[in-house]
Amino acid sequence: MASGNMCLPKAPSAREGGGLFVDLYELAMLRAYAALGMEGQATFSVFVRQLPKERNFLIACGLDELLDEIEQFHFSSQDVAFLRSLNLFPADFLEGLRRFRFAGDVFAMAEGTPFFANEPILEVRAPIGQAQVLETLVLNRLSLQTLLASKAYRVVAAAAGRQVMDFGARRAQGADAAIGGARAFAIAGVGQTSLLTAGARYHLPVAGTMAHSFIEAFPSEAEAFAAFAELYPRTVLLVDTYDAIQGVRNVIALAQELGSNCLLSGIRLDSGDLLSLSKTARAMLDSAGLGHLKVVASGGLDEMKVDALVKAGAPIDIFGVGTDMSVSADAPSLDISYKLAEYAGAGRMKLSTGKMTFPGRKQVFRREENGVATDDVISLADERQPGAPLLTPVMRNGKRIAPRATDLSMLRNAAARAIAALPPEIRALDPTPRPFPVAISPRLQSEAEALRARLIADLPPAASVAP
Amino acid sequence: MASGNMCLPKAPSAREGGGLFVDLYELAMLRAYAALGMEGQATFSVFVRQLPKERNFLIACGLDELLDEIEQFHFSSQDVAFLRSLNLFPADFLEGLRRFRFAGDVFAMAEGTPFFANEPILEVRAPIGQAQVLETLVLNRLSLQTLLASKAYRVVAAAAGRQVMDFGARRAQGADAAIGGARAFAIAGVGQTSLLTAGARYHLPVAGTMAHSFIEAFPSEAEAFAAFAELYPRTVLLVDTYDAIQGVRNVIALAQELGSNCLLSGIRLDSGDLLSLSKTARAMLDSAGLGHLKVVASGGLDEMKVDALVKAGAPIDIFGVGTDMSVSADAPSLDISYKLAEYAGAGRMKLSTGKMTFPGRKQVFRREENGVATDDVISLADERQPGAPLLTPVMRNGKRIAPRATDLSMLRNAAARAIAALPPEIRALDPTPRPFPVAISPRLQSEAEALRARLIADLPPAASVAP
Repeated sequence: MASGNMCLPKAPSAREGGGLFVDLYELAMLRAYAALGMEGQATFSVFVRQLPKERNFLIACGLDELLDEIEQFHFSSQDVAFLRSLNLFPADFLEGLRRFRFAGDVFAMAEGTPFFANEPILEVRAPIGQAQVLETLVLNRLSLQTLLASKAYRVVAAAAGRQVMDFGARRAQGADAAIGGARAFAIAGVGQTSLLTAGARYHLPVAGTMAHSFIEAFPSEAEAFAAFAELYPRTVLLVDTYDAIQGVRNVIALAQELGSNCLLSGIRLDSGDLLSLSKTARAMLDSAGLGHLKVVASGGLDEMKVDALVKAGAPIDIFGVGTDMSVSADAPSLDISYKLAEYAGAGRMKLSTGKMTFPGRKQVFRREENGVATDDVISLADERQPGAPLLTPVMRNGKRIAPRATDLSMLRNAAARAIAALPPEIRALDPTPRPFPVAISPRLQSEAEALRARLIADLPPAASVAP
Repeated sequence: MASGNMCLPKAPSAREGGGLFVDLYELAMLRAYAALGMEGQATFSVFVRQLPKERNFLIACGLDELLDEIEQFHFSSQDVAFLRSLNLFPADFLEGLRRFRFAGDVFAMAEGTPFFANEPILEVRAPIGQAQVLETLVLNRLSLQTLLASKAYRVVAAAAGRQVMDFGARRAQGADAAIGGARAFAIAGVGQTSLLTAGARYHLPVAGTMAHSFIEAFPSEAEAFAAFAELYPRTVLLVDTYDAIQGVRNVIALAQELGSNCLLSGIRLDSGDLLSLSKTARAMLDSAGLGHLKVVASGGLDEMKVDALVKAGAPIDIFGVGTDMSVSADAPSLDISYKLAEYAGAGRMKLSTGKMTFPGRKQVFRREENGVATDDVISLADERQPGAPLLTPVMRNGKRIAPRATDLSMLRNAAARAIAALPPEIRALDPTPRPFPVAISPRLQSEAEALRARLIADLPPAASVAP
């Protein structure tokens, strides 16, 4: 267990290996806007239409790298050559793509901010084609880390002060999910990651012990323990390869042999009934005078299992959590969208069944009373409402103005503070009986209704009745 | 809609942006094996312990890129500098890492092969440290594409011959999942992807139409349709921004105005009751003489919804499927493992509760009768069983010997043939009442039992009873 503190260059992941992280229709629209001379300013809002039913709130995450990726967004010669091969776009448009750079503004919630359904977490304001072409990039980057930070918070909350380690890289949905996930987990309060790439890239503490295979490669578990501890005196020993209780006995025997030279940190249980095994192991270690050895538990854990173990008094010091956290197993996607809210100075919305949007540039205000968040108001951007505005400018004319988040512990602390200010039933693992109050400001409401009425009036009378 | 056919260089994703896609414990073990002079040959098996309960089989996928990544696996100077900063490893080991190259053998099932619980889909045979250090890389790469191909097959099967398009990049769990997902989907039979990166990298047909935002940016839907169709005469028009039926009327009006110049391909429905809307839209188009226009449906689709629409006779020609396919929503992870099976010529296994493994190098044989797969046998590698062996050598001495899969349509055809040979209840979307028969060969069974007995005998008598 050690902490990396090297300064490595940032490597944005969506552009890795060459660009074009764009859905075809975005490029088709970019070209159409160019051909039609439609260069008016547009505002696109990113929001989650509905929270997953397993979540009382979400945590905004992923902005820092997204801003780098937007700054670096371009079409390489190779990209343009591929696009030419599609025979969809005229030569002058393709030539022009080589010079494409995003030159607009971005407003966003700070990473680590808790948010709710329909609240914009990011707004892009730029000429419409430029803003449109970022859709897939923006959604993919924000949804990954937002999804995973929101899940990890629950595990951290369930652990109730005990440490949580990220063991999920192997079964995450790809390398990007493993690496970005480790970042999101750290912001949500996970203490260490097993993944070296993530440790190096984000300066995160890394952790890891040994696999069952190591034990199996030796004639006996005792020999494997002795050999590993000689090389890594402060290691945690994995005890359940053959029989967890015998494994603990072997650890105790080794510790007694080492005597005052024993620097072992603890044992790890990775299978079986973790409650009874941890109690037994704890009692055995304590009565052998090894009260300082920690008990690490892993193996198919999620927040509900961690919560049950903690509430049952399992003497577990550190939870190693993998797969379920790394894929947000109970809610593996977000209903996140990138929607046009304004174009050329006028609000825009769609009326599609169940998918109505609110027009205009927006702001979100959060009110607190005695340090507890009481309610949010979604308003138009130029309104003033009581409380603190959550969207701030982070990019202007295509250049990031938000400082780079080099120290994740600052983000982690800010997230912890903002989450601690939520009402207890919202922070709880169980679905809240009373969703956090989010109001639409009267002005936004009336502008939405007026626009809706205008749009409906434009439809022929029979339109909404199927013939 | 167009097909990319450029030859772009492969860009392996787990190494992008710098290496170290390794869990710390793998490196700790690599160093321990080196320090202890343990350089015997090891075999690690990759298998899925249990199928997700929503899957009757899985489809092996992701091998091609994994082999490239293994060939290129190395530690850069930057990687070594980071590792030095951990103060965990001695200088000579770190120096040696610069020369690390995987020099072992790999055996694997061909991509597109259906497989079942406990069947090894890949075996790594190499000096134990070398094989151990690949664990996270191998599992992450294989599990992503195996998970997503297995999900996508279900959508393709539900579509029953209608086309399926991948719209999922925006909500996939990261860029790697979006790009690798498009590849896995194509192998499982998905016809097109919206994601340009994936089209360029894998030479996949790309598809896309327009977003609601495009319609909203115009004074009216009719004007938006006319402008887009002038630039893209063969486009599909999105009709549900304000009112789907009125949208269809606007398409019909445009088609009539264009007359014999009308080259429109179809309409897209993205919300509402897709069954009734598609029927109404189809009838309207047909009675307007536009029987050749296709109906594309999208919006929150998964295989169950596609199946219900197809069975209800929805006249939908193309399904655009996104989020649920891209995250394998009903089964977002695999219980996939990388386990030591043999070391220094002797079988190895663990006895951990519920996690027992089988020792030795293995092979899987699949028998067919009259073109229908009847059963599989998992055997030791040197056994001969009736049927076709599924594991073949794909890498020798660190060099891939399997040809690079440049043409995914060959993989798709092979996968389709192998899946078509499965019994109907296994291919069905519903959980099979009778799992596909997978036997353990008598020799493997008896070796496992003998080793188990030996390992248990080594434990003190009271070991498995908690004190």
